[in-house]
Amino acid sequence: MSNCLIAQSGGPTSVINATIAGLIKANQQNPVYEHVYGALNGIEGILMEKFVDLTNLPEEEIRILMQTPSSVLGSCRYKLQRDNLEDHKKLIKIMTDYDIETLFYIGGTDGMDTVAAMAEYAREQEITDRRFVGCPKTIDNNLVLTDHSPGYGSAAKYISAAALQSWLDLNVYTRPEVFILETMGKDSGWLAASACLSGIVDILIVPEVPFDQEAVLARVRECIKEKNKCYIVVSEGAQYADGTYLSSDKAKMAAFGYTFSGGASAMLQNLILTTNTASRVRVQDLSVSQRCNILGRSLTDVTEAFRVGEIAHKYSRDKSFTGKMITLKRKDTKKYAVDYASENASEIAGQVHTIPEEWLLAGNCGITEEAKEYLRPLIEGSPERVMKDGLPAFVKPYYLR
Amino acid sequence: MSNCLIAQSGGPTSVINATIAGLIKANQQNPVYEHVYGALNGIEGILMEKFVDLTNLPEEEIRILMQTPSSVLGSCRYKLQRDNLEDHKKLIKIMTDYDIETLFYIGGTDGMDTVAAMAEYAREQEITDRRFVGCPKTIDNNLVLTDHSPGYGSAAKYISAAALQSWLDLNVYTRPEVFILETMGKDSGWLAASACLSGIVDILIVPEVPFDQEAVLARVRECIKEKNKCYIVVSEGAQYADGTYLSSDKAKMAAFGYTFSGGASAMLQNLILTTNTASRVRVQDLSVSQRCNILGRSLTDVTEAFRVGEIAHKYSRDKSFTGKMITLKRKDTKKYAVDYASENASEIAGQVHTIPEEWLLAGNCGITEEAKEYLRPLIEGSPERVMKDGLPAFVKPYYLR
Repeated sequence: MSNCLIAQSGGPTSVINATIAGLIKANQQNPVYEHVYGALNGIEGILMEKFVDLTNLPEEEIRILMQTPSSVLGSCRYKLQRDNLEDHKKLIKIMTDYDIETLFYIGGTDGMDTVAAMAEYAREQEITDRRFVGCPKTIDNNLVLTDHSPGYGSAAKYISAAALQSWLDLNVYTRPEVFILETMGKDSGWLAASACLSGIVDILIVPEVPFDQEAVLARVRECIKEKNKCYIVVSEGAQYADGTYLSSDKAKMAAFGYTFSGGASAMLQNLILTTNTASRVRVQDLSVSQRCNILGRSLTDVTEAFRVGEIAHKYSRDKSFTGKMITLKRKDTKKYAVDYASENASEIAGQVHTIPEEWLLAGNCGITEEAKEYLRPLIEGSPERVMKDGLPAFVKPYYLR
Repeated sequence: MSNCLIAQSGGPTSVINATIAGLIKANQQNPVYEHVYGALNGIEGILMEKFVDLTNLPEEEIRILMQTPSSVLGSCRYKLQRDNLEDHKKLIKIMTDYDIETLFYIGGTDGMDTVAAMAEYAREQEITDRRFVGCPKTIDNNLVLTDHSPGYGSAAKYISAAALQSWLDLNVYTRPEVFILETMGKDSGWLAASACLSGIVDILIVPEVPFDQEAVLARVRECIKEKNKCYIVVSEGAQYADGTYLSSDKAKMAAFGYTFSGGASAMLQNLILTTNTASRVRVQDLSVSQRCNILGRSLTDVTEAFRVGEIAHKYSRDKSFTGKMITLKRKDTKKYAVDYASENASEIAGQVHTIPEEWLLAGNCGITEEAKEYLRPLIEGSPERVMKDGLPAFVKPYYLR
């Protein structure tokens, strides 16, 4: 019996470890692989042969692993060398040395690029016994060919709760005031859009729609006039029609003649203040909290992340299964449910799943009811948790042991 | 039968509405007052006679009220005029007009100042049928004569979870990196200190200890050298020995020759980068999220906030009970428990409860085990929640109806 190897890449999520848990558990129930290894810090760790053996992880540790946010195996931003094939060769050699038949790579579009590249290299070299399987993970929900990606639901739940609670906070004083919530999302507005599930967003600014300064300021004025408050949600990747990010120094220099630290929300805050559109503007940048929240994860999300691991394990029993990423297909049923399938990683790498144009309301007014119906099931439910001294128990990252 | 009035003042908390719930519930079970009124936006609303009747709030709405963060009655920063007594007179007149015997004022030190001032005024005027009772609420935990204050426990739970999760996030990449978490806390470090419950804090900077730039930078260097990472928690109120806040423009000008937006954490980030102490520094300012979190509140905190309302109602049956604030006394038992008592609001107003010196480890290294033992029970437990579409159900603020 050969072995398998799990590695994680890119930014962490709240449920990325649940996919590892699914893989380990599946192999315990159906031992296709003799050893389930974990590589520390993604490709970087594989090339340095930094492995841990996860095969016989006790039930209790799997349970805690399920509820541990961020990547317990660590991550990397390492990209395979493309100008020569040294990395590819070395990776195959290490897999051969350790008799690793399947590499499960949990990642986003960069991760799928690695899966596709390695599968293609193996094919070209006629290596049939080293296979590469991608498991989707991204809080950004920007992977194509899948209904959505594990990691997004928990981030969306965190963000919509953050919007709701800060809106409740914003309103307690009678003074006129603008609140700006900044979410991640460089190339798509899914995270920012999820704030609309709270029902309180006045203005939504996403990368999909070029930033129209006059229209946004007019809407702020309208909100302040009507109700004394204005609640704005902005993606870090909000941009002008020419592709310049609001957060870029170039945009700041053009608008104000000087640069300042801070992202899209700081830019908007400056804009609203310097144009006297409102006299008080508070900003909250959710920063890393949105991708590793430990207290408010979505049950749908945790369950699906685990299931993706199980499915990847199952599909990998087919000896021709390589260069693929597990995908989620929403069933056409009244009650939300998904099927699992797979697509070529090569068709996913380098692509961006953005919000459909018809789901965005005109004038930065948010998202349609249809979009909310798509989003709602993804934040449903709260997983059971094992607590310790008032905080969720967690698995100590393997790279710190 | 006369009536009572509830009002909230100062910054909101995650459990401030649980105290209202306790008051309403207590009066339903033991109808001491004919009507339980709520005033919108604190003293400001009372002076404008903006009242809602909360007497017969249905059981289900009380339950949702219990789990709604921020102030459902709204708040104010209005201070009673001190150079003349017009406000005092008007307040007594309005209470008389509405036959309001007791004003329950839920607030922090400013709120207790109002309670004390009004009780004193009534005493001087020999008005015995208008009474003023304070209920403690502050995320800062800076009220004296009480073991702790409702609102703090949930904020502490939120902050310690935020520290834990962002530390897990920080570690996934192998690069050397500093993370700075900024909490609220202008005059005391309780909020920042609560992050230490996560067990991951390397450097704690609180207002209680003058900021020693060289010592802190040396410790950052040490941490980076030892483990490639350094996790810092800083109070917004961190200050130099002369009382200048790290977040002040004066401090920034002195250190860098220019000012920039952002608070204590931005200042520290600049300091670490410009002194080449570390090459990568990420910052997260928890901003308002820490005082109105809806997903991760502490059961101890919610329960005690509710109980404070019940106790205030009970004590107010004593016709001489005025100018007092309800306090919590920790019992001298192995298992955590509290008794309730009361103290003169005049002895609480204007005072600051800071962290005892002996609870702070030397060299900004955090807090002692004794301090952690004090803190731990306050973040214990997670209250049951009624959810709706994946988010906690909430009561629509009365001032928005």
